[in-house]
Amino acid sequence: MKPPRGQGLRLAYLLLSLASLCLPSPLWKDRDSLMQEEKSHQTGGNLVLSRQEQLLSTKLVNLKKKEVETAITTGQFPPSMHFFRAKSLIDQSPVFSILQRMPKGAVLHLHDFAMLSVGWLVYNASYLPDCYICFTRSGSVRFRFSGTIPSHLPAQCSRWELLGTYRAQLGDVAAFDRGLLRNLTLVTDAPEQAYPSQSFIWKRFEEIFLTASGLICYAPVFKAYFYQGLLELYEDNIQYVEIRAILPAVYELDGTQHNKSWSVATYREVTRQFVKEHPDFVGAKIIFAAHRMLNVSQIKEDILTAMALRASFPDTLAGFDLVGDEDEGHSLWDLKDALTIPYSMGVNLPYFFHAGETDWQGTSVDNNVLDALLLNTSRIGHGLALTKHPVAKSLSLKMDIPVEVCPISNQVLLLVSDLRSHPAADLMAEGHPMVISPDDPPIFGAKGVSYDFYEVFMAIGGMNADLRTLKQLALNSIKYSAMLPDEKAKAREVWQKKWDQFVADLSDSFPREL
Amino acid sequence: MKPPRGQGLRLAYLLLSLASLCLPSPLWKDRDSLMQEEKSHQTGGNLVLSRQEQLLSTKLVNLKKKEVETAITTGQFPPSMHFFRAKSLIDQSPVFSILQRMPKGAVLHLHDFAMLSVGWLVYNASYLPDCYICFTRSGSVRFRFSGTIPSHLPAQCSRWELLGTYRAQLGDVAAFDRGLLRNLTLVTDAPEQAYPSQSFIWKRFEEIFLTASGLICYAPVFKAYFYQGLLELYEDNIQYVEIRAILPAVYELDGTQHNKSWSVATYREVTRQFVKEHPDFVGAKIIFAAHRMLNVSQIKEDILTAMALRASFPDTLAGFDLVGDEDEGHSLWDLKDALTIPYSMGVNLPYFFHAGETDWQGTSVDNNVLDALLLNTSRIGHGLALTKHPVAKSLSLKMDIPVEVCPISNQVLLLVSDLRSHPAADLMAEGHPMVISPDDPPIFGAKGVSYDFYEVFMAIGGMNADLRTLKQLALNSIKYSAMLPDEKAKAREVWQKKWDQFVADLSDSFPREL
Repeated sequence: MKPPRGQGLRLAYLLLSLASLCLPSPLWKDRDSLMQEEKSHQTGGNLVLSRQEQLLSTKLVNLKKKEVETAITTGQFPPSMHFFRAKSLIDQSPVFSILQRMPKGAVLHLHDFAMLSVGWLVYNASYLPDCYICFTRSGSVRFRFSGTIPSHLPAQCSRWELLGTYRAQLGDVAAFDRGLLRNLTLVTDAPEQAYPSQSFIWKRFEEIFLTASGLICYAPVFKAYFYQGLLELYEDNIQYVEIRAILPAVYELDGTQHNKSWSVATYREVTRQFVKEHPDFVGAKIIFAAHRMLNVSQIKEDILTAMALRASFPDTLAGFDLVGDEDEGHSLWDLKDALTIPYSMGVNLPYFFHAGETDWQGTSVDNNVLDALLLNTSRIGHGLALTKHPVAKSLSLKMDIPVEVCPISNQVLLLVSDLRSHPAADLMAEGHPMVISPDDPPIFGAKGVSYDFYEVFMAIGGMNADLRTLKQLALNSIKYSAMLPDEKAKAREVWQKKWDQFVADLSDSFPREL
Repeated sequence: MKPPRGQGLRLAYLLLSLASLCLPSPLWKDRDSLMQEEKSHQTGGNLVLSRQEQLLSTKLVNLKKKEVETAITTGQFPPSMHFFRAKSLIDQSPVFSILQRMPKGAVLHLHDFAMLSVGWLVYNASYLPDCYICFTRSGSVRFRFSGTIPSHLPAQCSRWELLGTYRAQLGDVAAFDRGLLRNLTLVTDAPEQAYPSQSFIWKRFEEIFLTASGLICYAPVFKAYFYQGLLELYEDNIQYVEIRAILPAVYELDGTQHNKSWSVATYREVTRQFVKEHPDFVGAKIIFAAHRMLNVSQIKEDILTAMALRASFPDTLAGFDLVGDEDEGHSLWDLKDALTIPYSMGVNLPYFFHAGETDWQGTSVDNNVLDALLLNTSRIGHGLALTKHPVAKSLSLKMDIPVEVCPISNQVLLLVSDLRSHPAADLMAEGHPMVISPDDPPIFGAKGVSYDFYEVFMAIGGMNADLRTLKQLALNSIKYSAMLPDEKAKAREVWQKKWDQFVADLSDSFPREL
């Protein structure tokens, strides 16, 4: 027998060498301490809970175990199923209803045109006066508000029609509106058939943004959408948000177009109004996001714009990012001439790069996780590739750069199927810095970040994930936000008060038998 | 801006602090060395290739890139597809044909009744005289060779019929035989519909073993099956094999049943005969495998049997393992009273435990990866859960205990869908000790281990996997086998000669344009 070289096994091996002692299980003596060591590594593993929190944690884990036992019996474990099929099961879950009530801190990865349930766009925005619609040859639609027939006809569109007039001549308006809803989400009964590949679903995904933008970029809708979006997050017990915003031209009824400054100023203004009306919501910041498939000189221009916007709105414009399907190309390395401009100009422009939202290992885009860190990114968006890059992973740990984990997005966009096997499971086991985010909840048929927390608590964190895990994730979301130190202190205070109330309420109301 | 704490970034940060210097990209200076560090971590990353091997490696990687480019265009990348659909594409792959020709060393994880393409069972074994068949109510079949109608009728079976007579009255024997083939594999056009859950497919999987055992346990078939199985491995350019064998009673035509000693002696005898006829095949060893769902006292008995068999056949009986669906329960911890017997008796019984063939994190069976190591296992079968257990992973690295990676098995048994995301990708990136194995190739419609090597080379190892990766995996398979030092030296020598020939042949025949 080969002498084991593992820590803590040497003594056991010595005992083993004296095998005639007939000890029942000499090798097991270090088991408890090794398992304890593993537990302490986990996200939240070193948090000390109050007695009340501990009791609640035990109850919550028991509730999870019950749901898992049922799932094993029925063969339907929501995190192992596609979210489109899992959602109705999650909606019935007692664990989920607790996660909805839980104050979750900040949402740090969310996109501008995917904040709010699409029902609002269809049943409110598209019913506003002066809304025109046109139908593309590929079966999609475009919208435009205008005082007269819009002058510009989008590619592939037949002609603009006033939506009010169009609806009036329909037999079944409800069916038509359901069709519009379908155009604004990826939700379908048979996603495997509908979306055969990652590049296919990305095209549909970007098409949805194009469709929604016609409605959202109309100035009155723009303001109302953002306000309603904040409200939906607030109602999901979120205290703060950072939005990746592409800042396209927002337009008025007469065709006037606003610039990016106007948009950032409007985001700031709506946020102030919202916070005034909801003092237990802390605020919102904007991360200006350029599309990665623009050419280098366009991205250079956007970088300069970002620097200017940050100078004008230091409290609101948190930094810069690139969006779009990474697998399409334009790696951070390809764009280095643009991305190193702030450094070379001595300007601090924080980066919040999407990086490693790919399954293709060893390609040029697969280096984005390392390059994002070398570009001093403040967080890594998705970072699914990080576990395949031990050097980048260790760098990100040392630099304390968190991964923004978006489980449902990753599943819908075909990067992972069974969420028990999400790479974040490994990262959580190692206590790697991370936050949980929803990416584009309405497009996936979700709302807020509670569904993602459900996937994390039930599956990615495994059976051992408990209230410490959840508390740590909420604390992380504030810690790793772009808020200034005093803003963070305020957010932490608001969150803590809500957390204490949540723990107290839940402890009272929790079913006795658990 | 927060000072980065990562290695190699300090200098860059200092430069950055002097940002007015307008250096184009101070942060990138360590990029090459960090990427190099990452490459050196990878499986085979430190192997030094000959000039000829280097040239071949470059050509092979170029060939891979071509296949990946095509796959991106067609949207059909075999490792991202279910193997049942991918196989016909893999069969056309130039990379695959090279991997078939490559001497792959040892196969260390393969099951006794899943060595040989099922066609042999149907078109040879079941056509032997005295073969009886019965049809179960669930649509499966059972076989038994017997001089007279078999006395024992299996559960759920109507009645025994002589297969020769039965076939003679059929209109379409070919269709019937195709039905038998289907009964002996999991292969189907629509696996997602056919196998809705892991526990469901495991039941079908175990049913197949039951069906095959009626044929294979007939003494003449037993010998021929093993011989033909070795031949199929040999033809796939494998030099040595270790078989997990459950050692059920092998029977003769008159109903006589042989004991486990007889089976091990027969395995040894057939191996000797095969090696005599194929001197460039090194040999085979047996790992006695009990079903994990037996009760503790039965497993205690099997442990004692394993110790006795190892005493009688020290060159052939390599050790002990447990088989069956881990998720069903009976963790190594549950079975500890049986598994610590050899230690307490001062007997060396090497273990080769299946462990971590599960997606359920934090359950009792999920601790098997740690417990296997604490029980001093020589290898970890599957070990998919290892990346979720940092302490166990680091222990296995320190103890130099390899993981037996079986990609196609894991995909078919629903543990991972897109093989680019197989946990072994992380382990390969870290250079964790591992070997590649096929588990049960005929049941998945595969043959030998070349298909698994294809998945590893094309996807799990990423675009950077090259000839060094493949060579290291072949070398690992010999290093981590249960062969004695002189057997290993012999195997290494046989393999090296074949490897050199492979490199020489391929260098000559490789398409010039690459």
